[in-house]
Amino acid sequence: MMRDSALGAGAEFDAIRALLARWGERAAGIGDDAAVVDLPRGDSLVVSVDAAVEGRHFTRDWFSSREIGYRAVAAAMSDLAAMAARPLGVLVAITLPASWREQLLELADGMGDAVDAARTRIRGGNLSDGDTLTITTTVLGSVFTPLRRTGARPGDRVYVTGRLGGPRAAIRRLSAGKPAGAFRDRLVNPVPRLDEGRWLAEHGASSGIDLSDGLLGDVRHLAAASGVDIELDARRVPTLPEVDIEDALRSGEEYELVVTSPNAFEVSAFEARFGVPLTEIGAVTGSSSPDRGRGSVRLVGAGPRVADAGGYDHFTR
Amino acid sequence: MMRDSALGAGAEFDAIRALLARWGERAAGIGDDAAVVDLPRGDSLVVSVDAAVEGRHFTRDWFSSREIGYRAVAAAMSDLAAMAARPLGVLVAITLPASWREQLLELADGMGDAVDAARTRIRGGNLSDGDTLTITTTVLGSVFTPLRRTGARPGDRVYVTGRLGGPRAAIRRLSAGKPAGAFRDRLVNPVPRLDEGRWLAEHGASSGIDLSDGLLGDVRHLAAASGVDIELDARRVPTLPEVDIEDALRSGEEYELVVTSPNAFEVSAFEARFGVPLTEIGAVTGSSSPDRGRGSVRLVGAGPRVADAGGYDHFTR
Repeated sequence: MMRDSALGAGAEFDAIRALLARWGERAAGIGDDAAVVDLPRGDSLVVSVDAAVEGRHFTRDWFSSREIGYRAVAAAMSDLAAMAARPLGVLVAITLPASWREQLLELADGMGDAVDAARTRIRGGNLSDGDTLTITTTVLGSVFTPLRRTGARPGDRVYVTGRLGGPRAAIRRLSAGKPAGAFRDRLVNPVPRLDEGRWLAEHGASSGIDLSDGLLGDVRHLAAASGVDIELDARRVPTLPEVDIEDALRSGEEYELVVTSPNAFEVSAFEARFGVPLTEIGAVTGSSSPDRGRGSVRLVGAGPRVADAGGYDHFTR
Repeated sequence: MMRDSALGAGAEFDAIRALLARWGERAAGIGDDAAVVDLPRGDSLVVSVDAAVEGRHFTRDWFSSREIGYRAVAAAMSDLAAMAARPLGVLVAITLPASWREQLLELADGMGDAVDAARTRIRGGNLSDGDTLTITTTVLGSVFTPLRRTGARPGDRVYVTGRLGGPRAAIRRLSAGKPAGAFRDRLVNPVPRLDEGRWLAEHGASSGIDLSDGLLGDVRHLAAASGVDIELDARRVPTLPEVDIEDALRSGEEYELVVTSPNAFEVSAFEARFGVPLTEIGAVTGSSSPDRGRGSVRLVGAGPRVADAGGYDHFTR
């Protein structure tokens, strides 16, 4: 548990004091063995945990400390968006090597940016010494009817928010030693689609998932969870300018949402409200065996090059 | 988010599948972007996060893989005990170096042991590659009236559960290359005092904290949070046989509870019910300045050697 400002001496406690001072009102109420959070009456708790590990999920070469802090919390928050949940708070567990101690408050500022953007608070955390900077974020949310991965049904339309491909295009350029240009912002400042997720659920979405492993990989997860077959049309997948379809189909860490819906959404109303595109990219074409854990994704309208569609895997990246 | 068994190929997904198969019913319901948890009507959510980092909080030399998994989850669970909360579940984020992959299922068994002991479930998690084995555990609980650190008042009695000093005595022996003997069990198998914490709260406890930093350090946290002065009598602190008072006062990772109460507890009823000692070890002697964050701990009945009482600090350990 992250403690309050009334602690004894020691480098860990000093660092926690500095963090809490930096966060101010964004971390108010911390200081007991655990945080106490009240849920709106009748709502369920939605909770998820996500880790950002230096060298695996980010590198100092590409991101500022503040950006690293922001991305870690924003990525976790995206799981709430996918469930159509309203944020109740986050807990951040930081493993901080000595070589990162000078950057702790910049990391904290980035976490604060993400918490502010989601209009929520830091409810607790943990600070440990260690060899690898790791930010493990637990997000808490509440929702009356969660938007699940399991609700897609034959006949549903498939939609995606945003324009895809930016993060992967940026990573390929940075990996080659080139500037990422206009793609950098999509990699560095992903925006969890929290309000968008709730709007889609309220307007009839039957299932949802956020794009963390890449469009094809995540739609496969959704098809498997729902036990359905999904057909995606590569020609309809919205891409950023100058992004090729391969990047759009495989880009991880998009944090856009894919949802299914039995009815057509009023796309113009969505886009006017959020300033984010909403695009129909396919359909649920059938139901696979009643045995859960099946499901398939078929891609049409793309060259043979992208026919075999893998997701994103931290272990083999 | 830790996913269900319907995933694509890849080493990460294979490992997650193996974990979920090992946990079985203890991890049922995992597979969406986030877990959905219902709280008993009227209860508040209690949530905390704790990290166990190899080389900082544990070492392969002293513990089996199963013990490492158990201790990580049990330690986090102790924060719920201190708040008198009933467990609702845990989320485990694991950073797994290649050198630990063979031990993943043993680690999982230990986590399962801790979850079974607390009569709760694994609600989600995260698995990442990385250089240092780290288990970050988020615990969820529910309680109608949380037992806080802030409720101690002048005139209250101070109690502690269990017999202290075992973990520190064990660590000192192991560090010297000697077997830890009878002390090993206290280090390896700490038992979160979940039922005991709820009993104490139901019987009038005014504040509580769990012993993770050592008796003196944690009582100082409690005194500071409540803004009170506390006097502890070293002669009354219950120690394990052959443990010296220094170890009993400073031993971290005890996961026993310290509570305050305006009235005397019926100690014999507590001990008969739980088979764990409950001992009055001091009193709240006064109120410090109304400015929160003060408070003091005075130790009587000990030699001058232990007069300066430091807590436990992961950074300087």
